[in-house]
Amino acid sequence: MDAVLADPDSLPPMPAGPPHGEEHFTASQTVRDLVIGTADGLTVPFALAAGLSGAVAANAVIVTAGLAEIAAGCVAMGLGGFLAARTELDHYRNERRREAEETVLYPERERWEVMAVFHRDGLRGPALQQATDAICADRERWIDFMMRHELELSAPDPAEAPRSAVTIGGAYVAGGLVPLLPYVLLADTHAALQLSCVLTGLALLGFGWLKARAIGMPPLRSALQTALIGGLAAGVAYLVARWVGS
Amino acid sequence: MDAVLADPDSLPPMPAGPPHGEEHFTASQTVRDLVIGTADGLTVPFALAAGLSGAVAANAVIVTAGLAEIAAGCVAMGLGGFLAARTELDHYRNERRREAEETVLYPERERWEVMAVFHRDGLRGPALQQATDAICADRERWIDFMMRHELELSAPDPAEAPRSAVTIGGAYVAGGLVPLLPYVLLADTHAALQLSCVLTGLALLGFGWLKARAIGMPPLRSALQTALIGGLAAGVAYLVARWVGS
Repeated sequence: MDAVLADPDSLPPMPAGPPHGEEHFTASQTVRDLVIGTADGLTVPFALAAGLSGAVAANAVIVTAGLAEIAAGCVAMGLGGFLAARTELDHYRNERRREAEETVLYPERERWEVMAVFHRDGLRGPALQQATDAICADRERWIDFMMRHELELSAPDPAEAPRSAVTIGGAYVAGGLVPLLPYVLLADTHAALQLSCVLTGLALLGFGWLKARAIGMPPLRSALQTALIGGLAAGVAYLVARWVGS
Repeated sequence: MDAVLADPDSLPPMPAGPPHGEEHFTASQTVRDLVIGTADGLTVPFALAAGLSGAVAANAVIVTAGLAEIAAGCVAMGLGGFLAARTELDHYRNERRREAEETVLYPERERWEVMAVFHRDGLRGPALQQATDAICADRERWIDFMMRHELELSAPDPAEAPRSAVTIGGAYVAGGLVPLLPYVLLADTHAALQLSCVLTGLALLGFGWLKARAIGMPPLRSALQTALIGGLAAGVAYLVARWVGS
């Protein structure tokens, strides 16, 4: 309190918190991109190869289809990630420009909207008035406040789009090569399918475990869930391919 | 102002704003799920079929691989969407429980964190003190404030997970059947590839256009970008399949 009174522009020193720090976790965009790319890369090529091995007993065809799928998935998901990040950036800039215009054209309305945010948070009476006055006294602060609290948008990083594309695309290729490798190495389709199941199952369990560790969730449940999704997708693809192939 | 003074607990009436209302757009989860499912469903099966038609001139094999891929992608992406929504819900509940504990164990620290949020927003001096006091006077309000402003988490809808799974999976199947249809209807692989390019190109253009309309972006650019991604993915898949197949 004394610190605030001594210099009204600075925060008082931070009181002690939990000894381990606050371990709240918000997954970084890179972790999310790795998870998206790896999960789909492990699951879809595995399921496609398993499905085809129920209908086509020729590893050359399965490898060709698998690699074509990995190439298509890598490009489609990588560019999709690129565009999603770019769209977010454009959206942020559009909305910020519009908010800036509105503080000029409709200042009373925008001032009321600041007040509505503080009112939602629980401020009343003089505290509500003073807080609203303080925000609206500075136009940049006012616009930033509306972006953060009314629209719940935070400024995206312009370098995000290319980074996101490379991360998702690379993770998709790395994940997709695991289930396909046995079909490249072994001549017999049935043996390759079995080895692919084992390799991909282990990879899905390990990936689910690591993912849960990275985002602070129970690792065993995540490992089993991830493997289950891969298994279900492969099972359905297998049944569809057998049904179509017969 | 008078309204606030008359009843300190209510907001004053809302002043007039822009005549068209505020057209800020935040894509609903359903729109995002439709976009994810349709984009990947149109692109990956199209690229896979195009790639295979460069290496395997047998429509039966292409249709089998395409349907297996659609089944695998539908299940993998649908369940992936389900788990993503469930994980978000678990994460929110975990973090809220932790914040609740921290307001009991480290009230001074958590009070300081409320003050730090208001300080970041630009409040100073008595306005900063009063606003902080008002939030911390009510424990539920205090916890909600920390969730919203420190962690930037808002409460997810528990019904989101199954809805998300069905939306993404259904959109993937609907999108994936478009590029595959010509290979089912026509006997000649080359003719089927040409018709598939035309149909999928039109579908991607239309989808990109509608997506941009739904999220308030320039529709022509979005239509061309979406078609370009599909074309690039198909081109790469075609080259990979030809290279492996030869």
